[in-house]
Amino acid sequence: MSAASHSVIDPVELTRDLIRIPSVTPADEGAMDVLERALTGLGFTCRRMVFEGPTGVGHDARIENLYARCGTASPNLCFAGHTDVVPTGDLAAWTAAPFEGETRDGVLYGRGAVDMKGGIAAWVAAVSRVLAEGEVEGSLSFLITGDEEGPALHGTKRVVEALAAEGEVIDACVVGEPSSAHHLGDMIKVGRRGSLNTWITVHGKQGHVAYPDRAANPAPVVARLLARLDAHALDDGYPEFPPSNLEITTIDVGNPATNIIPAEAKARLNIRFNPTHTGDGLIDWLNREAGALQAETGLRIELEHMCSGEAFLTEPGVFVSAVQDAVEATLGRRPEASTTGGTSDARFIRALCPVLELGLVGQTMHQIDERVPEAELRALADAYQAVIVTVFERLKA
Amino acid sequence: MSAASHSVIDPVELTRDLIRIPSVTPADEGAMDVLERALTGLGFTCRRMVFEGPTGVGHDARIENLYARCGTASPNLCFAGHTDVVPTGDLAAWTAAPFEGETRDGVLYGRGAVDMKGGIAAWVAAVSRVLAEGEVEGSLSFLITGDEEGPALHGTKRVVEALAAEGEVIDACVVGEPSSAHHLGDMIKVGRRGSLNTWITVHGKQGHVAYPDRAANPAPVVARLLARLDAHALDDGYPEFPPSNLEITTIDVGNPATNIIPAEAKARLNIRFNPTHTGDGLIDWLNREAGALQAETGLRIELEHMCSGEAFLTEPGVFVSAVQDAVEATLGRRPEASTTGGTSDARFIRALCPVLELGLVGQTMHQIDERVPEAELRALADAYQAVIVTVFERLKA
Ligand SMILES: [Zn+2]
Ligand SMILES: [Zn+2]
Repeated sequence: MSAASHSVIDPVELTRDLIRIPSVTPADEGAMDVLERALTGLGFTCRRMVFEGPTGVGHDARIENLYARCGTASPNLCFAGHTDVVPTGDLAAWTAAPFEGETRDGVLYGRGAVDMKGGIAAWVAAVSRVLAEGEVEGSLSFLITGDEEGPALHGTKRVVEALAAEGEVIDACVVGEPSSAHHLGDMIKVGRRGSLNTWITVHGKQGHVAYPDRAANPAPVVARLLARLDAHALDDGYPEFPPSNLEITTIDVGNPATNIIPAEAKARLNIRFNPTHTGDGLIDWLNREAGALQAETGLRIELEHMCSGEAFLTEPGVFVSAVQDAVEATLGRRPEASTTGGTSDARFIRALCPVLELGLVGQTMHQIDERVPEAELRALADAYQAVIVTVFERLKA
Repeated sequence: MSAASHSVIDPVELTRDLIRIPSVTPADEGAMDVLERALTGLGFTCRRMVFEGPTGVGHDARIENLYARCGTASPNLCFAGHTDVVPTGDLAAWTAAPFEGETRDGVLYGRGAVDMKGGIAAWVAAVSRVLAEGEVEGSLSFLITGDEEGPALHGTKRVVEALAAEGEVIDACVVGEPSSAHHLGDMIKVGRRGSLNTWITVHGKQGHVAYPDRAANPAPVVARLLARLDAHALDDGYPEFPPSNLEITTIDVGNPATNIIPAEAKARLNIRFNPTHTGDGLIDWLNREAGALQAETGLRIELEHMCSGEAFLTEPGVFVSAVQDAVEATLGRRPEASTTGGTSDARFIRALCPVLELGLVGQTMHQIDERVPEAELRALADAYQAVIVTVFERLKA
């Protein structure tokens, strides 16, 4: 890989430039252009990949995505991230305007500061230094989407499908999500639990409470089903994972009348599961439990399932330990390899290559007054630079 | 008792006069005036009893009630009823205007035709004939309210309290609710189940489904509590009563987010209970069950109870068999003594005297196109006349 330019990018300035673009998901507002200009300047070949389609929430979306690569040699180390951000919430509650990029006492404020415009800028800065120093042989690439905070149907998922169809090879991927828990570099995410949502509807027959024989009450049936599902221990855990967990997220009958037996009862649950399970295996179990209760009660029980990601683990090995070593060498702290937390686009990328998440401290993400100390942006750029160098050394060894 | 007048009242005409007054609860619109004029004409002393106060549904009410008596001698046989009616529902769905009193093919249409302007008119007609024939010695009285179909807080309940405080003696009471199930006179109601509503709130702690350790989900707790309560058999029945029955009437969490553990879960249940139980006994049981689950789970469970009537039974005896005999003699059908169905104002009157319900066929009550065959109004007046005569004979014997 040869550097087309020796310009070095400042991670704080690039974060600020990105924060000033109000790219509230799914809007792009030019955020991808800012990134494309910076990468083109560093010698990257940029491909804009626009995907359109239904969002599942009532309207179609047109999503900007970017795949950029510098070099053609192997190995190809990719950085993945997203330029879209979550809404601001109550604007009046912010002490700094969310799209101004104001720095106060060395802390940069703005929506996306940690999740994850700051992470993108730090990796771009690291890449600019690596290229200026001419240190690596191989390829560097970026897989950036504008659809991570929303339904995530037309972002990383579709880019990964397109790249796989073309035979594009990526050897390892760092996702820049804010993986650190309390201190920069204290945690990397090496896997994620799977997530399954199930919508339950029990169909009964409406009637008057004084004449229960003429009605069929769905409310006790949904209560029994939920109590049974909740009482079931899914597993005792899995290496690197906590036990799988089921949460009932809502139960809704919505009957205002004290003397009426309702016609229908609805509920929804979410299961976060470790690799003991697959989405399909859990769906089978839920369908069996509902079927058994339907047979017992005679009331029709309808389930709808949506598995938004299977559980996965990037096993300990060369890639993971290279990243841990590089972070420890630059930040003085060896990151714990964890599988906690919510889903991320890593669930799509794992189809291509080993993937892990390394980024800023997540404590203010999605909050009012999201912010990052400028010193942490610079420290993350240092760590990312060491990660790039170390991963190339180890993958080529 | 001496008749002040020998005028005889036609039950169909009086029903029509009452239907033409749109006395949708709690509005009176002059319905009580129509009745007062008819009774004054028959020699009754009429007392209007107006009670005001909160309704529990957001505004105060001013309720018209009437206590009318003819004669001072004992025994005092009372007829109880209500002039208020339920709303029409979808006006466009009626084939006859609900407040016109139209007769089509011998059937009188209108809101209140069976519940229970027709019942009131039939008893007034029966009384007019009894007085014209000078057959009885004793007193006849009417206890009529304009607040039965609503909260029923300022109607019969308060009239009964006032009469009891004055020492007014009533020896037996017929309530004119549409007690007949399929054919006129096939059923009288000699008691009612009690009714208890309980509002349940489980207080948890909101959080993200990915971090269940930082949250406390109230939804499985409400599901377990409801499943336990629903599985408990309250009793096997009681002489003249079906088993007590618990219905879960709603469960409400109202959480739109698939990834959020909710803070609170609410539910409501209704118990219809026979004399095996009292409201207080059931409240104790519910509080114990909730307390046990609260101790198991650590989540606070709050219950609010409202018992709107205890179970009661007018035991078989002189009064009940006099009514059954009179109905059988006039209509050719011996009414079954039943305790099924919803609550009625009989629950208040039982504090004063033996009470039962005898009236029209209830099938169209509270429905679109409520209606009564004119022949059934006349037949009911005949039966009521026989009831008055027979009850006086037996009570004086
Ligand atoms: Zn993110
Ligand atoms: Zn009624």
